[in-house]
Amino acid sequence: MGSKKNILLLGAGRSVGSLIQYLKPYALKNEWHLTVGDVSLSQAQEKIKGFTLSKAIVFDVFNQKLLTNEINNADVVISMLPAHLHLPVAKECVDLGKSLFTASYVSKEIQELSEKAKDKGILILMEAGLDPGIDHISAMHEIDLIKEKGGEITLFKSFTGGLVAPESDDNPWNYKFTWNPRNVVLAGQGTVKFVRNGFYKYITYHNLFKRLETVSIDGYGDFEGYANRDSLKYRELYGLENIPTIFRGTLRKKGFCEAWDVFVQLGMTDDSYELEGVDSMTYREFINTYLVYSESKSVEAKLIDFFKLDSNSEVLSKLKWLGVLDNKPIGLQKATPAQILQKLLETKWQLKSSDKDMVVMQHQFEYLLNGELHKKTTSLVVKGEDADHTSMAKTVGLPLGIAVRLYLEGDIKLTGVHIPVVKELYKPILAELEEYGVSFF
Amino acid sequence: MGSKKNILLLGAGRSVGSLIQYLKPYALKNEWHLTVGDVSLSQAQEKIKGFTLSKAIVFDVFNQKLLTNEINNADVVISMLPAHLHLPVAKECVDLGKSLFTASYVSKEIQELSEKAKDKGILILMEAGLDPGIDHISAMHEIDLIKEKGGEITLFKSFTGGLVAPESDDNPWNYKFTWNPRNVVLAGQGTVKFVRNGFYKYITYHNLFKRLETVSIDGYGDFEGYANRDSLKYRELYGLENIPTIFRGTLRKKGFCEAWDVFVQLGMTDDSYELEGVDSMTYREFINTYLVYSESKSVEAKLIDFFKLDSNSEVLSKLKWLGVLDNKPIGLQKATPAQILQKLLETKWQLKSSDKDMVVMQHQFEYLLNGELHKKTTSLVVKGEDADHTSMAKTVGLPLGIAVRLYLEGDIKLTGVHIPVVKELYKPILAELEEYGVSFF
Repeated sequence: MGSKKNILLLGAGRSVGSLIQYLKPYALKNEWHLTVGDVSLSQAQEKIKGFTLSKAIVFDVFNQKLLTNEINNADVVISMLPAHLHLPVAKECVDLGKSLFTASYVSKEIQELSEKAKDKGILILMEAGLDPGIDHISAMHEIDLIKEKGGEITLFKSFTGGLVAPESDDNPWNYKFTWNPRNVVLAGQGTVKFVRNGFYKYITYHNLFKRLETVSIDGYGDFEGYANRDSLKYRELYGLENIPTIFRGTLRKKGFCEAWDVFVQLGMTDDSYELEGVDSMTYREFINTYLVYSESKSVEAKLIDFFKLDSNSEVLSKLKWLGVLDNKPIGLQKATPAQILQKLLETKWQLKSSDKDMVVMQHQFEYLLNGELHKKTTSLVVKGEDADHTSMAKTVGLPLGIAVRLYLEGDIKLTGVHIPVVKELYKPILAELEEYGVSFF
Repeated sequence: MGSKKNILLLGAGRSVGSLIQYLKPYALKNEWHLTVGDVSLSQAQEKIKGFTLSKAIVFDVFNQKLLTNEINNADVVISMLPAHLHLPVAKECVDLGKSLFTASYVSKEIQELSEKAKDKGILILMEAGLDPGIDHISAMHEIDLIKEKGGEITLFKSFTGGLVAPESDDNPWNYKFTWNPRNVVLAGQGTVKFVRNGFYKYITYHNLFKRLETVSIDGYGDFEGYANRDSLKYRELYGLENIPTIFRGTLRKKGFCEAWDVFVQLGMTDDSYELEGVDSMTYREFINTYLVYSESKSVEAKLIDFFKLDSNSEVLSKLKWLGVLDNKPIGLQKATPAQILQKLLETKWQLKSSDKDMVVMQHQFEYLLNGELHKKTTSLVVKGEDADHTSMAKTVGLPLGIAVRLYLEGDIKLTGVHIPVVKELYKPILAELEEYGVSFF
């Protein structure tokens, strides 16, 4: 290894910048050539500016000939495409014997490629970004440390949030979009499951934003965490099969969830049907659609009644600030409630070009060692530089870049489908992340 | 007509008894031969006892040869199969040129058979039971009367309930199952839509059992109505395209919905996932799964807190009576929350053999005539005889029987797919229903 290699990077979206920046010096040193493919050629070209050993191409995953050719020319493939487009790439990688790296969840279909990948001697590394990614890497590091000294873990809670840094936090929601807005609007739909002191616990969607955990991070104050969908599967992934308490959650600043819950309670995050009459509807009419008819009561008065609010409540001022009480036309022809809400939020929660975002993560452990209960908490805070260089992009792109570099330099020998929960992966990645300021405390 | 005919009745379930009783004298008079087919031969045999011109057969809708043969031998087919099994029957009826009658909703696929059915000169009459069925028949009768005298309908509300008669009402829920228990448990899931004074209104499932309308029926007291899923489609069906207010709902006795809402709020009516650990779970643990973990608080105390109940609340005594707070094993290996709840309810809400059920329906109209606002309410109450001769079975089976009889005697000339909203259908059916005590007041 160390000789000339071809890296194919599919997708030139948000997280690609820091990934490319990371790879650049290694590429120059080792003569690694980078090809960046995207449906938008200009976006791909933008991303490789100043990178000598590189080229940008138009890439369409549904063009089978192109897919085969480009993967065939590569030594390793990184897919930053939307998650549902990884499968055809993975299949082609297996057929052609090329290793693949992504930051997305392992789907059942991709997991099923594991034996074939082993036969071909290739690695398909999934979930190597932030969440999933750094959460695995850092949690497994602590879990193995505790186990190695003979501890028995009785509680594991883990929280992650993509937020706005305090210095750029200038709206009453204390939140801006740093990742896919659609996923934020739909977050938590379905039913949450976890274990608490040996008892299975389920939270249905409409109770999710009421059942919050408080998470404190030194120097950054208190956050609120709502539960992620399935904490149970992490028992097996992390080797914690009989743990009495396991809980994973998402962090927001205090007060966010109570206000967001208004939309959940009214049904305004629903994405399962198109609303009637959207083309002539204002945002005020949109929210009123979910409130009881009244000849005389204002929308504000109805909200105050339904949610038992004070007339000077923080919730109401958050809603007012968003403009959801304004008689402004929505401006869409057809839309689901979730799509209408997303359109409104995108104008209000957009990062300004100078805004810094902030990634926050915390793991909490309790374990028995020599008959005594111990507690350990480990936290991460990473701030971005501006809207183009976000901590979100950095923390997604870096672990992926490090993994690819380690692989190309011959330091990862694994084959088959993996996520970074094995020491061979998490140890070197975590060590190198620290050098880039991604460091737990 | 009036000569020898063969009637094929598919399905020998609950509503079939009254349908067969209705047809019997006409069959004897006109030499109509009845074949009753069911997967259970004994059930089919049971239903034709004492009916001379009849036979029972084993019938399986997935046996194509049998399906073709039996329909080919028939002059008219009545399907009382589960709704999702009508389509293969309907297709075969169209192919073989035989008319079909059912009490189920028209699906998109069945609607699409209409042109072919017309070409073959046959009628596919759907929605000819109670709800759908008598609701259409009685509503259209009133709507056409109002229109014929020049009235402009501004409000239409319609409610139906399958309940237990006061003389057999001996539980705190004032409810027993008189129809498919599964449908009762899942009732209302999805999003409700209707129009109120020209404004579209949506109610998401978790608010459905809070947004109730009170419906009073002379001599029977007050009921509460929760909204049915889609009231909007009835605008077109009933020729009320521009009506400012249209609302359809389901009736329960007062207090039912507040207690039922406990299950909805906690997520216990969810049918979308299987719960972990059901095989070793009690009903008390089942409800506790949805409540916050506590080392010291009882399930009762948690319910009182979460729902802000009095400790002597009616809601709590309803829950206690059901046994959902008992430490009794569920006794299922695997189940969704909805399936667990259904199992419990089936033991508690079962009709005793001597119990009388009661069907309740009410239509409310407001209309402008000569510049004045008029109101009209029309109600129906039908009581059953006992658990084997329910009002539910009677009101589903009778309109279907009448329609088949009218058709066989040549009084219905329609072809294609229809529901009983046209005068040719609703007028004679409504008139004859009255003779059988199914009479609006």
